[in-house]
Amino acid sequence: MDAISVIRAKRDRHPLTEDQIDWIIDAYTAGTVADEQMSALAMAIFLNGMSRAEIARWTAAMIGSGERMDFSSLPRPTADKHSTGGVGDKITLPLAPLVAACGAAVPQLSGRGLGHTGGTLDKLEAIPGWQAALSNARMMDVLREVGSVICAAGDGLAPADKRLYALRDVTGTVEALPLIASSIMSKKIAEGTDSLVLDVKAGSGAFMKTAEDARELATTMVELGADHGVRTVALLTDMSTPLGRTAGNALEVRESVEVLAGGGPSDVVELTLALAREMLAGAGLPDADPARALADGRAMDVWRRMITAQGGDPDAPLPTAREQHVLTAPSSGVLTRLDAYAVGLCAWRLGAGRARKEDPVQPGAGVELHAKPGDLVVEGAPLLTLHTDTPNALGYAEAALEGAYEVGTADDFTATPLLLGRVGA
Amino acid sequence: MDAISVIRAKRDRHPLTEDQIDWIIDAYTAGTVADEQMSALAMAIFLNGMSRAEIARWTAAMIGSGERMDFSSLPRPTADKHSTGGVGDKITLPLAPLVAACGAAVPQLSGRGLGHTGGTLDKLEAIPGWQAALSNARMMDVLREVGSVICAAGDGLAPADKRLYALRDVTGTVEALPLIASSIMSKKIAEGTDSLVLDVKAGSGAFMKTAEDARELATTMVELGADHGVRTVALLTDMSTPLGRTAGNALEVRESVEVLAGGGPSDVVELTLALAREMLAGAGLPDADPARALADGRAMDVWRRMITAQGGDPDAPLPTAREQHVLTAPSSGVLTRLDAYAVGLCAWRLGAGRARKEDPVQPGAGVELHAKPGDLVVEGAPLLTLHTDTPNALGYAEAALEGAYEVGTADDFTATPLLLGRVGA
Repeated sequence: MDAISVIRAKRDRHPLTEDQIDWIIDAYTAGTVADEQMSALAMAIFLNGMSRAEIARWTAAMIGSGERMDFSSLPRPTADKHSTGGVGDKITLPLAPLVAACGAAVPQLSGRGLGHTGGTLDKLEAIPGWQAALSNARMMDVLREVGSVICAAGDGLAPADKRLYALRDVTGTVEALPLIASSIMSKKIAEGTDSLVLDVKAGSGAFMKTAEDARELATTMVELGADHGVRTVALLTDMSTPLGRTAGNALEVRESVEVLAGGGPSDVVELTLALAREMLAGAGLPDADPARALADGRAMDVWRRMITAQGGDPDAPLPTAREQHVLTAPSSGVLTRLDAYAVGLCAWRLGAGRARKEDPVQPGAGVELHAKPGDLVVEGAPLLTLHTDTPNALGYAEAALEGAYEVGTADDFTATPLLLGRVGA
Repeated sequence: MDAISVIRAKRDRHPLTEDQIDWIIDAYTAGTVADEQMSALAMAIFLNGMSRAEIARWTAAMIGSGERMDFSSLPRPTADKHSTGGVGDKITLPLAPLVAACGAAVPQLSGRGLGHTGGTLDKLEAIPGWQAALSNARMMDVLREVGSVICAAGDGLAPADKRLYALRDVTGTVEALPLIASSIMSKKIAEGTDSLVLDVKAGSGAFMKTAEDARELATTMVELGADHGVRTVALLTDMSTPLGRTAGNALEVRESVEVLAGGGPSDVVELTLALAREMLAGAGLPDADPARALADGRAMDVWRRMITAQGGDPDAPLPTAREQHVLTAPSSGVLTRLDAYAVGLCAWRLGAGRARKEDPVQPGAGVELHAKPGDLVVEGAPLLTLHTDTPNALGYAEAALEGAYEVGTADDFTATPLLLGRVGA
């Protein structure tokens, strides 16, 4: 077996054999297949695709490249959630403590943002003192004591995926369905959860631009979960406009706390509850009532204990950016469109995201939305507030918003439902 | 400008702009674009192709990555030849001194073999004492004194191509028309010849399997030559069966000397003369008579002086392999087929070629053909002789010949012409 013959097979549109897939993932993990060979293969996979059988074997090989965690010693069933990423997607923050408050254990291994989508760990790090890195033993302790934990995945989990993910990021091979599906599912299956709910996003702010593509990705991932004995369902959700009214790290923590306090934007509450119900059903707790756990403060209580257990101070004031810049509505009427990708790019340029993985993020930077599509706006009243510590980035950030929003009449506006569909048993 | 945006453009089937091409070749030469990024781009080019305009700019950028040689101080016009590579293709050896004997200067910068096709430098190194590496000054001296020189290209010529060629070799991206055409032509144009004749091969032993693909490659390269003021023509020639009766380094030198002595296999003589006539016409010497220069010993005289000028002894016995293994004809009749790729692979496995570029080759190893397609063979009489210093490679080498030849009747045999076509003014 050699790398060139595997690359040529995919290049020439032949399906890869199980032996070829096992060999190349092993050899890549061991370092005998070079990055330049894997990137050529990734581009061939991007352009020529993979069958369901190939994706399943590729995922299994990536799981096999590292350790698997085991939560079977916990007294509660585990439930996990993964979002394919979007703008203003802070759902993990209220969701994990909410589901724990309803009786499941939520081991949420999360990542950092790269590009225009934010990362859950970056958001939580806006909380003074909060630490993302936990040992496996400490993670189990927090899960046992609090019920939910949100932390960084250890290096031992699917190391082949870790290396491949970083490679894809610099070689233009991120948006390939087989590589997205196998990357997400290898990490989640290695993590050892009993059940998994996927939030697969479609729209300008997501990897998948159309609902059809999102459904295909969701179906592939649900099947991969089933192959490995993880009860998996997926919700297809809209990402044509940002979720909630904030995009940016501390801004999104503030909004999440509002939801935990029983308030917050209606779309964030709707999606949090929909995902919570799916997670609780997957964990064998279909009768739990997450809306009540939000209303009566139990979710907030778990949140405070979870933040405290990881060194954070839930009462500390959140950081704010040095400079605020208000953009006003150009005319009066109905906001008919506000593009998710443009807002994500704007927040990223303001300092909320990073260009390279070693860069820091600004905790206070981001975009605040004073109106959402369908809302009435008044000419000259605030429409968006841009927050940044680096005011000379404002011009470049504002340029991202060119053509990103429109004000019209009620007749020009068609509401898009947040929940587009569901895949799974 | 950044590597990812260039990769994504080609990945998504957009033509690359002139700025994108210039930038990526410059940055790759400088080392700021990584090998894993260039290999992803090479695979995208392989699968999505390039327009003529893109290939032209890519070639110009690779020429611009290094120095250009200048032969204008020579008293004779220069003529050069390049073959896209085949099995038993020793034509450069008799051709260069023959064309020099007819009045042109032949600066033949050549390469080493990789894979199943042999390299001109490897062949000449079978001659005791002969040296491939010459300084530019020494190369000019030999050209001036002898009229022809065959040596290794210096590091300063199209360095971007040098790096990319090595990368393509390990990433399954060799056989892409845009990359083959730009690689060959960037080196040949940087070399600074006045005129160029291309031998573009089609068939199992060549990169291009069909005459149509070979014609497309030839047309592209002839246009690239014209763009840069190099008079370029291409002959399309058959590579479904080996050229001549030998494949292997010393074996091919011996056959070349037979041709220079006025003998040798008829196909080698035919192709040598056809290419010589094109080169002489390109050099403005259409009235030269290469057949006479072969017959009267002038070409042999230039050969002996050329070998001597590079430290070789033209009278020294050539190395022979330690072991010979004869394969006999399975039945009597007409040899209807003898596959070029299989013979090339067999010779490579016997030790005539190298697996990695740092490997040595066996000068005596290779395959000797006792019959060519169309010849009568007698059951039990020698058909092929395998030569090797490593007898335990024989079984593996012989396996390459499985199904590679057939003996039938005269009715089963259709002769393929050696010259399939011509492209150029």
